[in-house]
Amino acid sequence: MHYNLDDTIVALSTPPGIGAIGVIRLSGARAVEIVDSVFEGKKLAEQASHTAHFGTIKDAEGKALDEVVVTLFRAPRSYTREDVVEVSCHGSPYILQQVLQLFIEKGARMAQPGEFTLRAFLNGRMDLSQAEAVADLIASDSAAAHQIAMQQMRGGFSDEIQKLREELINFASLIELELDFSEEDVEFADRSQLKELMTKIQKLLHVLIQSFQLGNVLKHGVNTVLAGRPNAGKSTLLNALLNEERAIVSEIAGTTRDTIEEVLHIKGITFRLIDTAGIREAADQIEVIGVQKTMEKIGQAAVLVYIFDVIQSSPEEVRADLEKLVRPGLHLLVVANKMDLNPYTTWEMYSGGGSREEGGGGRGQGAEGREQSLITQDNWVPISAKNAMNIEYLKEKLYEAVISQKVSAGDTIVANSRHYEALRKAEEALEAALAGLDSGVTGDFLAMDIRRALSYLGEITGEITTEDLLGNIFGKFCIGK
Amino acid sequence: MHYNLDDTIVALSTPPGIGAIGVIRLSGARAVEIVDSVFEGKKLAEQASHTAHFGTIKDAEGKALDEVVVTLFRAPRSYTREDVVEVSCHGSPYILQQVLQLFIEKGARMAQPGEFTLRAFLNGRMDLSQAEAVADLIASDSAAAHQIAMQQMRGGFSDEIQKLREELINFASLIELELDFSEEDVEFADRSQLKELMTKIQKLLHVLIQSFQLGNVLKHGVNTVLAGRPNAGKSTLLNALLNEERAIVSEIAGTTRDTIEEVLHIKGITFRLIDTAGIREAADQIEVIGVQKTMEKIGQAAVLVYIFDVIQSSPEEVRADLEKLVRPGLHLLVVANKMDLNPYTTWEMYSGGGSREEGGGGRGQGAEGREQSLITQDNWVPISAKNAMNIEYLKEKLYEAVISQKVSAGDTIVANSRHYEALRKAEEALEAALAGLDSGVTGDFLAMDIRRALSYLGEITGEITTEDLLGNIFGKFCIGK
Repeated sequence: MHYNLDDTIVALSTPPGIGAIGVIRLSGARAVEIVDSVFEGKKLAEQASHTAHFGTIKDAEGKALDEVVVTLFRAPRSYTREDVVEVSCHGSPYILQQVLQLFIEKGARMAQPGEFTLRAFLNGRMDLSQAEAVADLIASDSAAAHQIAMQQMRGGFSDEIQKLREELINFASLIELELDFSEEDVEFADRSQLKELMTKIQKLLHVLIQSFQLGNVLKHGVNTVLAGRPNAGKSTLLNALLNEERAIVSEIAGTTRDTIEEVLHIKGITFRLIDTAGIREAADQIEVIGVQKTMEKIGQAAVLVYIFDVIQSSPEEVRADLEKLVRPGLHLLVVANKMDLNPYTTWEMYSGGGSREEGGGGRGQGAEGREQSLITQDNWVPISAKNAMNIEYLKEKLYEAVISQKVSAGDTIVANSRHYEALRKAEEALEAALAGLDSGVTGDFLAMDIRRALSYLGEITGEITTEDLLGNIFGKFCIGK
Repeated sequence: MHYNLDDTIVALSTPPGIGAIGVIRLSGARAVEIVDSVFEGKKLAEQASHTAHFGTIKDAEGKALDEVVVTLFRAPRSYTREDVVEVSCHGSPYILQQVLQLFIEKGARMAQPGEFTLRAFLNGRMDLSQAEAVADLIASDSAAAHQIAMQQMRGGFSDEIQKLREELINFASLIELELDFSEEDVEFADRSQLKELMTKIQKLLHVLIQSFQLGNVLKHGVNTVLAGRPNAGKSTLLNALLNEERAIVSEIAGTTRDTIEEVLHIKGITFRLIDTAGIREAADQIEVIGVQKTMEKIGQAAVLVYIFDVIQSSPEEVRADLEKLVRPGLHLLVVANKMDLNPYTTWEMYSGGGSREEGGGGRGQGAEGREQSLITQDNWVPISAKNAMNIEYLKEKLYEAVISQKVSAGDTIVANSRHYEALRKAEEALEAALAGLDSGVTGDFLAMDIRRALSYLGEITGEITTEDLLGNIFGKFCIGK
């Protein structure tokens, strides 16, 4: 990718395909001139910024290609801070292609993915983390992902980091100044103030780093494995969970949905429901191959929803299944289905804690000797999938599984793994600097650690960047943005 | 479909899916007010028409949904002649759905397919044939289809028809006035002037009706069957024909292409190449089932491209194949492939006319006794598909097969079958009126025929219309147009 800002770029900015309208966007010094040269209507060069003009695009032979509305955004009052022209055409792929080609013939260059936003970044309209948020915003498919991206695009935590970083730069400069006068043993940088600042930054970094796990979940969704024996009611439950949801999602055609998994939104959080056919009805034991596959899926999951039939499955069976499925770090929900048929079933009967239920079939060896049961009052979810009874409670439990405390709208959350890495490395460098400060290392070592922290912090906002990094970030954008 | 112009409609106007931007459009008296109520930025109600404004859309809880550019088009200077507001959002299906729902909560109604254009028609911005052309324009996928739609949208023949129709209405009124004075035997309508006018209209109708066959081909493309024995070089030819084309078509992702057929554009005309595996290598004769399928395809085709290998296929085989395949009205091109291996092959050797080539294998009974050969100098196309030799000549021949005389850009062409039907019925009625005029029928019969012609002509431009007709026309539009 070349970061040439001299030429004028052009791209289709709306999704491909047939629609009522399609918008072609140009950005660069010659944007107005290029459109003017093929536009029959008012002379665009003489029009004010932020005005729209109806007219006709004519090809080289003077044939009318389309009737369009052209909107002008003059530098620097535009997305890229360059002259931007948006041409709203009829949404025919044929016409859009013709108009695009015409602009290219007149001197525009086809934009690369993300090149408009790259220019916005290079021209200082937004920092790098804001530019990244634009792509996240477009890709957002849930309220939570949307909110994080929106917050980041509007500044997010980068303003604060930038401010603290500038303060830290001052200290670093002072320390480096000391090095020039090293023979004289002076201290330009007040060590206690420096420590205070670094501690303050460290605290911010700590909060941001802590938020990443949640941010990641909010952005990408929660992998949730749905497991249970045949006829436990898995599909009925899936339908009950998705029923309402499906209607909403299908309102706008073309919303991309993962076809392998089902996606469920609860209070704006995406749950990716991974159905398993893992637990087969092979007599009493869990079939080996099925378990392997199920275990693989569970390995990638954060939540396990285990569903069983309170009529068919004995406590021993349930406990035996759970022991095979549960692993540390996995949040378990035990869904007792068909409670309408046996409404007096309680979690204690299944937990194995009271041993009152033992001896029913001579089995139950697994649960004995265990200090704490896998089944607790807290993860027990009695439902009737068929009657959609208690489904809302299950949803509440799923939500709680992810978000322990209420996240308020104002909380800053890091959802970008690049930012997370940079924050972690900056924290490490700061820790080293603080330790050095305490143990009284020489100024050059201190300066090195601080410079390292500054560099990592600068990567987040884009003060420190490389062509590779930019290519990596903007290459994932869609064309036209 | 209800033609309620009182409410404010809203729809996503860009294609569904993820893109850099997505445009939501509102039209109606409350359009500005509705957007204003959720827009943080300038007060839109106070802004001039044709201006664009950056700001934030906030939901009911005051949470930022998106940063957008809002463009205002005040009545009557808009597409629908009502107040129109276009909201350019980030192209995330999630965001677009949220913003759409917000507008609906604030009082807008989801637009039906084509409802914006329906309003443009009902509010007199365009006549019915122009409105239909908008849909044709969006669906156009070739230069020819695009040009016809563009011409029609910009007035086309409907202006002329409307003018002549008004003149005819005057005559009809005069004749009906005569009926009120029938006892007095007066003639308000000058019969020779009336005849002159009707003849003039008839001539115009005739030209338009004649143009329909071509118009239909230009709009929908030419069904072209590609047939030949295995190893004759069909796929190589297909590749040679499509090679360049493919690169062009794939430039804009999402250009919808028929997957069953291959589409070839020659000088702006679409050829739908229907590949057949019809002629199998079953000894010497054409396999029965294969022929049936091929014949079905040929039955729907306008052009047959028969390809054979000048090394492998004898003149008798070729002639036998052609006799089975050719039917009246089908334009035949005989493509002699692998001419590089046998460059002295001529059409006369295969035509069977000179009988010089007979007796090679004792066969050839089919061609004897025939007055005119199916193979002529004119339909003989010697090529080498492998070396792409003479492919341009084949394309020229395909183009000629459809367009005998050069169609100039200014020619009016009817491509809409509804218009064609109306024109034909109007012509019939006019013929009856002219015949009546010549035979001196009474004024009431004359008036009836003229009224009938007027009614059909009025259907084209939409002066005469029904809810059914409008529902039929606009129901085929995409939503948001």
